[in-house]
Amino acid sequence: MSDRSSGEAGRLGGASGVDQTAVRRANLARVLDEVRRGEVVSRAEIAARSKLTKATVSSLAGELIERGLLRETGLRREGAVGRPGRSLELDGGGISALGLEINSKYLAARGTDLAGRVIVERRLGFDAMNLPPEATLDRLAELASEAIAELADQGSPRAFLAGVAVAVPGLVDAGTGRVRYAPNLEWRGVAVADALRERLGGEVPIVVDNEANLSALAELHAMPEPADDLVYLTGEVGVGAGLITGGRLLRGAGGFSGEIGHIPVDLDGQPCGCGRRGCLETKIGLPAVLDAAAPDLVAAGADPQDQAHALRARAEAGGPEALAGFDEIGRWLGIGVSMLVNLLNPEAVVLGGYLGTVAPYLVPSAMRQLRERAVAGEAATCRITASSFGFSAAVRGAASIVVEEVFTDPLRIPSGGDTAAG
Amino acid sequence: MSDRSSGEAGRLGGASGVDQTAVRRANLARVLDEVRRGEVVSRAEIAARSKLTKATVSSLAGELIERGLLRETGLRREGAVGRPGRSLELDGGGISALGLEINSKYLAARGTDLAGRVIVERRLGFDAMNLPPEATLDRLAELASEAIAELADQGSPRAFLAGVAVAVPGLVDAGTGRVRYAPNLEWRGVAVADALRERLGGEVPIVVDNEANLSALAELHAMPEPADDLVYLTGEVGVGAGLITGGRLLRGAGGFSGEIGHIPVDLDGQPCGCGRRGCLETKIGLPAVLDAAAPDLVAAGADPQDQAHALRARAEAGGPEALAGFDEIGRWLGIGVSMLVNLLNPEAVVLGGYLGTVAPYLVPSAMRQLRERAVAGEAATCRITASSFGFSAAVRGAASIVVEEVFTDPLRIPSGGDTAAG
Repeated sequence: MSDRSSGEAGRLGGASGVDQTAVRRANLARVLDEVRRGEVVSRAEIAARSKLTKATVSSLAGELIERGLLRETGLRREGAVGRPGRSLELDGGGISALGLEINSKYLAARGTDLAGRVIVERRLGFDAMNLPPEATLDRLAELASEAIAELADQGSPRAFLAGVAVAVPGLVDAGTGRVRYAPNLEWRGVAVADALRERLGGEVPIVVDNEANLSALAELHAMPEPADDLVYLTGEVGVGAGLITGGRLLRGAGGFSGEIGHIPVDLDGQPCGCGRRGCLETKIGLPAVLDAAAPDLVAAGADPQDQAHALRARAEAGGPEALAGFDEIGRWLGIGVSMLVNLLNPEAVVLGGYLGTVAPYLVPSAMRQLRERAVAGEAATCRITASSFGFSAAVRGAASIVVEEVFTDPLRIPSGGDTAAG
Repeated sequence: MSDRSSGEAGRLGGASGVDQTAVRRANLARVLDEVRRGEVVSRAEIAARSKLTKATVSSLAGELIERGLLRETGLRREGAVGRPGRSLELDGGGISALGLEINSKYLAARGTDLAGRVIVERRLGFDAMNLPPEATLDRLAELASEAIAELADQGSPRAFLAGVAVAVPGLVDAGTGRVRYAPNLEWRGVAVADALRERLGGEVPIVVDNEANLSALAELHAMPEPADDLVYLTGEVGVGAGLITGGRLLRGAGGFSGEIGHIPVDLDGQPCGCGRRGCLETKIGLPAVLDAAAPDLVAAGADPQDQAHALRARAEAGGPEALAGFDEIGRWLGIGVSMLVNLLNPEAVVLGGYLGTVAPYLVPSAMRQLRERAVAGEAATCRITASSFGFSAAVRGAASIVVEEVFTDPLRIPSGGDTAAG
């Protein structure tokens, strides 16, 4: 694996060069994945599992070591017979990933290393709903710069930032990182990736994605056994869905899937922020719930996480009015979930945001609706569970897609000679 | 490629044997696919495109010829330089596929060869709604036997039936071919695959699938440029959806996806056949439409295709009442489609059954709803088109999945020595 065949050379080398690079990329990813899954494995074990020759595995492993993705560990016998082989384990301590989140009420950052170990985590209340996009992007860039500096400090001397991913509560053109429409931010056509690139300078890749999509991926990556079909429901100011079907994120033709919050459940119902009437969001969105069940908790700029905990405390106190309120919200939640179940037949619906915080008070009545409304009956009745990530699922998912991208394309990481500090 | 490594031997040969068979199966499929896409290609061209060695391609091509899937055509020069090579083209004239359909008002059969050429096509009015499942399965088995005999007669002397697929209007356990629930047939727990296997005898593989799924696949296979994200809506007694996302059929965890007909659009609306109220089917299902717009066309046992044409004639006559009726149905259709668009963001929604027949009178008012209700606005507004297959999409899809299965697994077809007549 000479310089001649590096990613750049491959791209410049015409069609055949590109193919060679694609094959090498796939093989590097395969070796890296074997180590990730095996934790500590020898080159011979990788060769046996991947069906690559030992010589190829050695060459690929050498390249992954040069790129700081793998390191050699001590000696290890491979089994009863055979010579002892030098084992490999994941390195990546110097390689970091940064996830960011723009929420209508807060901004968040989460920086991890390649093994997902958290190096920096920040969250600050921010009233993005009532400020122009530029002010929000300025503050987000500041937060990102602080986090990047901390990643560079705390990482190894060979610190390299693999990428930045930004979660936003809206519809995103994935290709350009432009927010097409974010109803609860009142943003239309905001070029988030470009704005952040300009403010941060440098060459780091920046992607922007919908918060529900990223949250769904965070749940998927965290499951002990990956679910092929799951839905993540955000429960904040807005209600959106991240859809995993057949083990993959369902994005749709333009990347605008999952807009369950604006599906009408009551055509003559209350007006919604989107200009329509009776959307699911008007029944189970956090503002609607606060209005109905706890008007005293409504305060401009209040953090939804605090409001969710206050709601939960109220439910725990168990006043009949509060419980009846939660029962009613659970009923509408169940109507929404039964639509998802009838259309998509997921194994699980994961409740995020405030829906997760108060899940015990919603799920029984939601399950009653689901049992009544699932056309396939018990066979399609899926479990409704609370996310274990609270309000951090989106920013977790953002950091984790950067990590996954490195595992898919190890050529993103430069080899030893041309390291760039994050 | 000796007998030693045939599918059966591979399965008996332990873990390593299974892997060898899987690799060979994939390589056979790859070579077959290159010929299918190229129409007439040489072994050298296949080797260049597939990255397999010429020796491997020759061996695989030999095996595909033995199995009756390919044949050699004349001589053909490969280009400016190089020796002339013998070219290959698809054979498969002797290999046939049978699609069957159980509809609540008719039974249908469609037999094709491997190139999709229709050899036999039958359709007969049958009142499955008012007869016990056994009577329907008896008649279906008769229809299948007649079609199989015709396939054997008209095919080459080396006739081989690759499989039978059955479309049903209900929820199917794909693994067992058992219909869990078919609301409009009033079937619960009917073992369709087993019943048919018993009645037909023999060893032919039988699969059972939902009519909307199979119709969606028929549309997908027929598109000049395959759409990655499309929804097929059945429009008969029931309303169901076949969902293609990311180029694949979305089945969900248990195979029960696409039940859009029983999503409530009007919680206080009319009672539905499923026992609930205000389901989409009560607004746009064929019986509801006939009740509202043309009660004189309602007749027990009438063929939905005839009813659809009569409805269309009424629309064409253009009475104001009829047009207002279609406008209202189009409105509810648009509400249903906007749910699909907000959740799944497809490129196209294809209207099947009667919805396709009267599409010109429904689409304008449906598009108005969609433009109003699509959260992503114009960006997510997909086209709503009529299926070009009318009421035959499901039975077409059934025949085509048998054909696709052969292309995915050429080892299903026995080699010359052990041919079985269909």
